[in-house]
Amino acid sequence: MAAEIVNPRSDSAPGSSDQDGGAEPLDSFDPAFALHRGGKMAVQATVPLRDKDDLSLAYTPGVARVCTAIAEQPELVNDYTWKSSVVAVVTDGTAVLGLGDIGPEASLPVMEGKAILFKQFGGVDAVPIALACTDVDEIVETVVRLAPSFGGINLEDISAPRCFEIERKLQERVDIPVFHDDQHGTAVVTLAALRNAARLSRREIGQLRAVISGAGAAGVAIAKMLVEAGIGDVALADRKGIISADRDDLTAVKREVAGFTNKAGLKGTLEDALAGADVFIGVSGGTVPEEAVASMAEGSFVFAMANPNPEVHPDVAHKYAAVVATGRSDFPNQINNVLAFPGIFAGALQVRASRITEGMKIAAAEALAAVVGDDLAADYVIPSPFDERVAPAVTAAVAAAARAEGVARR
Amino acid sequence: MAAEIVNPRSDSAPGSSDQDGGAEPLDSFDPAFALHRGGKMAVQATVPLRDKDDLSLAYTPGVARVCTAIAEQPELVNDYTWKSSVVAVVTDGTAVLGLGDIGPEASLPVMEGKAILFKQFGGVDAVPIALACTDVDEIVETVVRLAPSFGGINLEDISAPRCFEIERKLQERVDIPVFHDDQHGTAVVTLAALRNAARLSRREIGQLRAVISGAGAAGVAIAKMLVEAGIGDVALADRKGIISADRDDLTAVKREVAGFTNKAGLKGTLEDALAGADVFIGVSGGTVPEEAVASMAEGSFVFAMANPNPEVHPDVAHKYAAVVATGRSDFPNQINNVLAFPGIFAGALQVRASRITEGMKIAAAEALAAVVGDDLAADYVIPSPFDERVAPAVTAAVAAAARAEGVARR
Repeated sequence: MAAEIVNPRSDSAPGSSDQDGGAEPLDSFDPAFALHRGGKMAVQATVPLRDKDDLSLAYTPGVARVCTAIAEQPELVNDYTWKSSVVAVVTDGTAVLGLGDIGPEASLPVMEGKAILFKQFGGVDAVPIALACTDVDEIVETVVRLAPSFGGINLEDISAPRCFEIERKLQERVDIPVFHDDQHGTAVVTLAALRNAARLSRREIGQLRAVISGAGAAGVAIAKMLVEAGIGDVALADRKGIISADRDDLTAVKREVAGFTNKAGLKGTLEDALAGADVFIGVSGGTVPEEAVASMAEGSFVFAMANPNPEVHPDVAHKYAAVVATGRSDFPNQINNVLAFPGIFAGALQVRASRITEGMKIAAAEALAAVVGDDLAADYVIPSPFDERVAPAVTAAVAAAARAEGVARR
Repeated sequence: MAAEIVNPRSDSAPGSSDQDGGAEPLDSFDPAFALHRGGKMAVQATVPLRDKDDLSLAYTPGVARVCTAIAEQPELVNDYTWKSSVVAVVTDGTAVLGLGDIGPEASLPVMEGKAILFKQFGGVDAVPIALACTDVDEIVETVVRLAPSFGGINLEDISAPRCFEIERKLQERVDIPVFHDDQHGTAVVTLAALRNAARLSRREIGQLRAVISGAGAAGVAIAKMLVEAGIGDVALADRKGIISADRDDLTAVKREVAGFTNKAGLKGTLEDALAGADVFIGVSGGTVPEEAVASMAEGSFVFAMANPNPEVHPDVAHKYAAVVATGRSDFPNQINNVLAFPGIFAGALQVRASRITEGMKIAAAEALAAVVGDDLAADYVIPSPFDERVAPAVTAAVAAAARAEGVARR
């Protein structure tokens, strides 16, 4: 059992071996493997189990009185079990990081990582659930059956467009929050960074024209959120170019996107869209040519969020843009989902919200942006993931918004 | 978050209130409620997450290398995630303790209790999964889909006869151990107690004739295990009397039971079966009349395991029997499943067994019986649940048996 916190590097010298005495070459040559050995999480009891008196309260016969009370008054399950503090991190392993469809087992290290980020940054318990099915209705049905045991469902690394349908169908069927972090977490943090970049430039969101490269889970969610926040205009580009209503090769989701984006009616390539644009948001991978960055409007914002290789290298972006952000921790302004999801779920769980509304997400973005406060600068439009003010601020804002929107249950 | 261990009784004075300021009458009047507030368990990270270097190993980009390795070599999931140390405690809430079909939410306090017993007594991580479905095939399908995330499946409090079919179908579909504790855990501890009672009386198991009251999950499993262990004869009685092949009202499972029990061809009532019997095993509730106990053979063993009211009160049983055991912690010789399941799963997980075989269960019973050693006495045929020798002994015996039976994978 990996019950203690161990420094992974202490054990990573070549030739080290595990407790079974076998050589572990992966662990020796890469500290990520040494750190992952035995997994990254554990369960712990939060009540004493020292003697038969303890056992008679935490287990039979005492537990039967608690069960009976919940059977008579179902909402008590939130008071007397961990349900209202635990989130299922659910994936089918089809769109894991940049690795694609690697299956449920190989996705588990990411889901465990997510689970411990929930705990570390939001105080939220989380359990990795990697499913051996990829059919939309099978995933929905499975999660509906799991729902009694959890206070919320965080969908993770499920490929588009199935992720949209799964989230929508699931939220119709369960009365706990369902949140696809690859969509909404990314969108919340992006909006927060954009708000601060606009404030720094003394511009309103409504004056900005944005271009998003990538029309998968993150791109579509960011577009929706920017429109919700009052962006001047936003266009998305997929591999075939700018999404516009007259294209005849659009999926149902992209047809919907065409309906609420690209008011200017732009056509052509991503590069065509960037000419004169105020904001570039990259969630696609690939590379944007320097000329296209140069063609953007004066004082532009470049958020090149692909990992590990940003669509525009920050050194190039800085030649033209007023604000540059990436997804990487080794450059300033990291757009990192961990700034959002722990506090969003912590706030939703605190008030036992039945869902996470658009208003709650906007409130999260505003609270996150506000943490920067008077320290706002071109290299500081978004706080560090390790800024301890972040999670409490997001939690409080989301809980208040849930109450205001009528989805709180306490 | 209930992250600290709190003495439940410190907070149980009438009129105490919770952190929200509301009066909590249930907590004030019953320490079981105060202890259960907020649940009984939490998740913890076992790796550091102090700075961006930690994050780059436990999450992106380091985690991607671990995912890729597992995608290429699937068995590595057991080395580099918590899969091989975590068990799902799965129920549908249909047969919870003595409470019956109270549904998934109301069953959660028991599943959480089970989970923390796994941790406390076996060092095994466990997650409560209470399902919102009761159909056999739906439960099987759901658990098959969950299986990639877990190293074992502990079925709990699922009503008979569905529990038999669910366990069998599930074990055919997944390559991790599936174990219905209400059946096999109870059977293992019962066999251990019986072995020691026989040793005390200088008798062989093969000389004994046993009668089991109750033909549900526990009764059927105990019967199978006693036959496997070489019992002289065993008869079961359900509400309609002794199970024999000529009864025309038997379910499929009871027909199977009739095939391998009751070699003597007994008919009639439970009381008829007890006349001259050596062993009574009660897993049914109800009351056995004193005259029936008196009619048993000289030096009999009475294991009256119903909770909270044993089928025969120990004071009555002692008038006639050489060894008396119950399911209660306030009498000697408590037949308690916690003596078995933590070590059985710990042993199976240690060697990554694909299933839990009959041989592994017999080995568990023998190891459990052996802990008593030379201290064997009429009031000490089974160790205390708090005897720290129990789990290591059971774990080692089960792991060795798994290797001997060819189901170990390391």
